[in-house]
Amino acid sequence: SETKKIAVLAGDGIGPEVCDEAIKVLKAVGKIWGHNFQFSKGFVGAAAIGETGDPYPVETHSLCLNSDAILFGAIGDPKYDNDPNAKVRPEQGLLRMRKALGLYANIRPVTAYEALLDSSPLKHERIAGTDLVIFRELTGGIYFGKPSGRSENDLEAFDASLYSRQEIRRIAIKAFEAARKRKNKVTLVDKANVLATSRLWRDEVKDLHQREYADVELDYLFVDNAAMQLILNPSSFDVLLTENMFGDILSDEASVIGGSLGLLPSASVGDSSALYEPVHGSYPQAKGKNIANPIATILSAAMMLETSFDMVEEASLIRQAVQDSLNEGVGTEDLFKSNPSTTNEVGDYIAGKI
Amino acid sequence: SETKKIAVLAGDGIGPEVCDEAIKVLKAVGKIWGHNFQFSKGFVGAAAIGETGDPYPVETHSLCLNSDAILFGAIGDPKYDNDPNAKVRPEQGLLRMRKALGLYANIRPVTAYEALLDSSPLKHERIAGTDLVIFRELTGGIYFGKPSGRSENDLEAFDASLYSRQEIRRIAIKAFEAARKRKNKVTLVDKANVLATSRLWRDEVKDLHQREYADVELDYLFVDNAAMQLILNPSSFDVLLTENMFGDILSDEASVIGGSLGLLPSASVGDSSALYEPVHGSYPQAKGKNIANPIATILSAAMMLETSFDMVEEASLIRQAVQDSLNEGVGTEDLFKSNPSTTNEVGDYIAGKI
Ligand SMILES: CC(C)[C@H](C(=O)O)[C@@H](O)C(=O)O
Ligand SMILES: CC(C)[C@H](C(=O)O)[C@@H](O)C(=O)O
Repeated sequence: SETKKIAVLAGDGIGPEVCDEAIKVLKAVGKIWGHNFQFSKGFVGAAAIGETGDPYPVETHSLCLNSDAILFGAIGDPKYDNDPNAKVRPEQGLLRMRKALGLYANIRPVTAYEALLDSSPLKHERIAGTDLVIFRELTGGIYFGKPSGRSENDLEAFDASLYSRQEIRRIAIKAFEAARKRKNKVTLVDKANVLATSRLWRDEVKDLHQREYADVELDYLFVDNAAMQLILNPSSFDVLLTENMFGDILSDEASVIGGSLGLLPSASVGDSSALYEPVHGSYPQAKGKNIANPIATILSAAMMLETSFDMVEEASLIRQAVQDSLNEGVGTEDLFKSNPSTTNEVGDYIAGKI
Repeated sequence: SETKKIAVLAGDGIGPEVCDEAIKVLKAVGKIWGHNFQFSKGFVGAAAIGETGDPYPVETHSLCLNSDAILFGAIGDPKYDNDPNAKVRPEQGLLRMRKALGLYANIRPVTAYEALLDSSPLKHERIAGTDLVIFRELTGGIYFGKPSGRSENDLEAFDASLYSRQEIRRIAIKAFEAARKRKNKVTLVDKANVLATSRLWRDEVKDLHQREYADVELDYLFVDNAAMQLILNPSSFDVLLTENMFGDILSDEASVIGGSLGLLPSASVGDSSALYEPVHGSYPQAKGKNIANPIATILSAAMMLETSFDMVEEASLIRQAVQDSLNEGVGTEDLFKSNPSTTNEVGDYIAGKI
């Protein structure tokens, strides 16, 4: 079959370890189904600064442009933290990459796994049945608005948030389409009682809904209220649609529901590129210790198969294998304190189940 | 003793009912301690739009300027919701009031009451011992930044966030001072890896800390991480300090910890005015039914006594009376489903305990 070119940007901290396990699982899938996955590595983040002085070097950008999908690990290194004025920061690479590849839709599913309800900070009855997905706009808003900086006299700082109807519309389409395949409901989260950008979001989403997606239920929630409802009634949501900054906050908040950040995959997609990465960060303290949870990255690989390659069955097989490993108590120490498996063991187990 | 002039802006929905109970409790305190509290009512919110066409009329502003403290109920009316383009909205009154009175520090304590641990969505062991307070900047940032609006062709919208060192410093001072009277720790929440305004917050707070508050522990958290930690480890916080928009989201998120929004008071203070209000909204469905929980407003009155009038003992007596009522199962239906008291009964009970 046709070769699928996968760029692997493993990044910093535990990124390389968890990517290795996801590759292991993808190779197992390739073997069984006769798919030809070709993996090519590129530098990103602190690792790339170390190699090239740039957290998102041109070679990496070319590699991404020439790939069918990108598997991303994590970026971030303590050496760049708490130095807000550092000239080059790994995060800049991440933001530039998102913009340069046009990855405007960040998609984060949140599921409450039965086997892990105990490790959630929330009570069982609150989270049972939770199955939501957040569509966060990723290349606009206050992350990229100009002007942003300091006044001449250094006494003031400013940032700008900007959205166009087209930026709103293209991600809203993705959210509505996803809802149709799920529970058929979209909740737009904004701050339309304060922000002009939020009022444009409401106008545009409402308009699109009336014209093309009237069959999907649409409701609106102010972001402050959404931050409450996510904890009070997580199972009431299906698709949450929101702008960049609100999505950053809410998707991290929602990540606590399931009981482990180590399980949450994400996709960042645009019209011509797509990147798949675990929600968790580079977790530098765990680097090289063979204790990092590879499941989020493995599930990100499943999202890749489904979303980029239309390999729906293959993806669901990976998910089933993950389910099995959880049910059988095979997982790293963040999940199972008493009898934890190593990063490798979890990867081997899941690959073995394929 | 000297007369204390209290402006009462009861506002919309259940605002008037809960304010009445707080006034009842303040009168009980006045009687016992021989304080002379004088109450004067003013219109605000939808109620004020109805009367004057303006959600924050000049008469109300004068009343506030001529008072020693303001007791505020709630604003918001369904009639103005879901109409983001309405020309006059109750929220505009609220924002103008904050700005005109210079109420730059919004202070929201969050406590986990033993008697209510069951109604929290979070597990006991997570929240036990939680006692935090959020200092949210209230008159700057993206709420008030210019330019904000639509492009001429109506295809784009924009908002601006702006902070000056002086705006940051004055609320940071309040946060550090509060920490010294509490657990001596301040956590600055920002997005310094992305926003220029956040980097100014870090610079300024760090500088102030080194120069004047080096005895207070100071740490930094990105807002996305803070949204997780508030649910994962709420008891690890003491004072959270943050900008307007982040504070709006995080303080509503934190409000779920205790198990009832109906218990949470707040203060919004500036250099010459101070306003006290329950965190909950106008809850229009409950209006006139005598079921609204008055405790948040009563505890807001306690904050008033302590903060504006330096009546520390009186405030702690109110808090004790609230504690007692909870321990004895006297509360409205949001707290005690099986044998609820009415709004009046709860107010009477607490006033009676004074
Ligand atoms: C590292 C940071 C710039 C980034 C963001 O805010 O988008 C991260 O928090 C994320 O959510 O991917
Ligand atoms: C009503 C709204 C404008 C307001 C805000 O966002 O500040 C409210 O959410 C609050 O927190 O007091």
